[in-house]
Amino acid sequence: MTPYIHRVQYYETDRMGITHHSNYVRIMEEARTDFLDRLGWSYKRLEEMGAISPVTSVECRFIGPTTYSDEIAVHLRIEQIGGARLVISYRMESGGRTVCEARSEHCFIGKSGRPMRLQRDLPDFVAALEREKEREDS
Amino acid sequence: MTPYIHRVQYYETDRMGITHHSNYVRIMEEARTDFLDRLGWSYKRLEEMGAISPVTSVECRFIGPTTYSDEIAVHLRIEQIGGARLVISYRMESGGRTVCEARSEHCFIGKSGRPMRLQRDLPDFVAALEREKEREDS
Amino acid sequence: MTPYIHRVQYYETDRMGITHHSNYVRIMEEARTDFLDRLGWSYKRLEEMGAISPVTSVECRFIGPTTYSDEIAVHLRIEQIGGARLVISYRMESGGRTVCEARSEHCFIGKSGRPMRLQRDLPDFVAALEREKEREDS
Amino acid sequence: MTPYIHRVQYYETDRMGITHHSNYVRIMEEARTDFLDRLGWSYKRLEEMGAISPVTSVECRFIGPTTYSDEIAVHLRIEQIGGARLVISYRMESGGRTVCEARSEHCFIGKSGRPMRLQRDLPDFVAALEREKEREDS
Repeated sequence: MTPYIHRVQYYETDRMGITHHSNYVRIMEEARTDFLDRLGWSYKRLEEMGAISPVTSVECRFIGPTTYSDEIAVHLRIEQIGGARLVISYRMESGGRTVCEARSEHCFIGKSGRPMRLQRDLPDFVAALEREKEREDS
Repeated sequence: MTPYIHRVQYYETDRMGITHHSNYVRIMEEARTDFLDRLGWSYKRLEEMGAISPVTSVECRFIGPTTYSDEIAVHLRIEQIGGARLVISYRMESGGRTVCEARSEHCFIGKSGRPMRLQRDLPDFVAALEREKEREDS
Repeated sequence: MTPYIHRVQYYETDRMGITHHSNYVRIMEEARTDFLDRLGWSYKRLEEMGAISPVTSVECRFIGPTTYSDEIAVHLRIEQIGGARLVISYRMESGGRTVCEARSEHCFIGKSGRPMRLQRDLPDFVAALEREKEREDS
Repeated sequence: MTPYIHRVQYYETDRMGITHHSNYVRIMEEARTDFLDRLGWSYKRLEEMGAISPVTSVECRFIGPTTYSDEIAVHLRIEQIGGARLVISYRMESGGRTVCEARSEHCFIGKSGRPMRLQRDLPDFVAALEREKEREDS
């Protein structure tokens, strides 16, 4: 898929003059929800099927600064789909440079409040993710 | 009541070097929830009684800047309790100067999704607010 | 100009299930910076000319809720350009309904730290705003 | 040192009903600036000495949810002080449970825009951190 574009807002900068690092975690979410939308599996659809998907971990390496009005292109990759979790990686570029590399892990919780098993409980979602992963890897 | 104290965080500043104006709307909420907690009528309690309370308007005049690590003292006043709405005003001071004057209006929505009438549906809450208002006004 | 489109992010919702009201103040800024960019007078350009532009007041009336993944179209209007201040109004629509009406006021501070007089200190900026205002009004 | 206490605000929750994960990165910053203040080495003091300190990486594992009005106690530890970087870890507890484990890395940039070497350029800061680290480890 084409990268998700985030335009840095004034309110995302801090008094060092750069994008505050916490916002990259939000940009990851923006790129992820955009990716799932385009895949036909929006958070909305998952929620309507009774699944919520908490983030279980995030990691970000901040490689270069960005600031107000910069465009950040987020390249997202499915790293792992298995058992009860989904792992996604992100490479963010701005002005031709990599500015952030990141990773997030997600679980899926069903109506009962218990973790879902992806292959069993959301097989069509897993199939869509796997098709996309194959396309990226090839 | 004694004012609510907010310490400005680094992530609340912007590249002008000052607290981004949108954060004052969040500080109003902090002061308001703290006030209701101290009154014995937390949002939690209201929610448990089946009431949610959306903000229907806010107004802020930004009089002077603050920045990272400044303490903002929020003086809150009940302006009006009536019919279906609550009006609150806020005066924020930092370093002996007024930095922001603000106002918010709130309605209350019951389980049916319909606006509540405060005197009829939440009489004890109204009584507590009125006692506090009298104390302030005197 | 065509309206600015903001897509509501998951991180902008709150536990009432709706877009937290403080975010509308940020959406106003997004629409305003987008408007100034398209006018050829970005905050970047103003900053390079030695002008910063603090927000001196905001007002928002929240008319209807929005939530995650909703598109908000922001219709922005120049209300007043004069002396030392600029007044802008905003009408936000989502799904064919008005969800928020808002207003912001802005001053301009020059290198000396003193308020600028718009007509004298930024005449080309004023001319561009006035041309846009005439176009809207006609 | 005693833990830093963060009270979860309504605006920090999302429509899943829990604290949005991105806020933990901000809570880490709150705890870190509070820690440095109490150590006598606030960001303000570092900035006055010509040093800014960008975050170079963050990692968070989200172990349990929190929500509006919960108190989160942040236990902070200096993990590593060396060469050009500082590594800090965080254990966050709420209601007797660990809710988040996190880590951040920081560099220090001097007036020239070049990375500082901590021992050489900020020896008193390093000494204060090391005294605190010894106290914690013992």
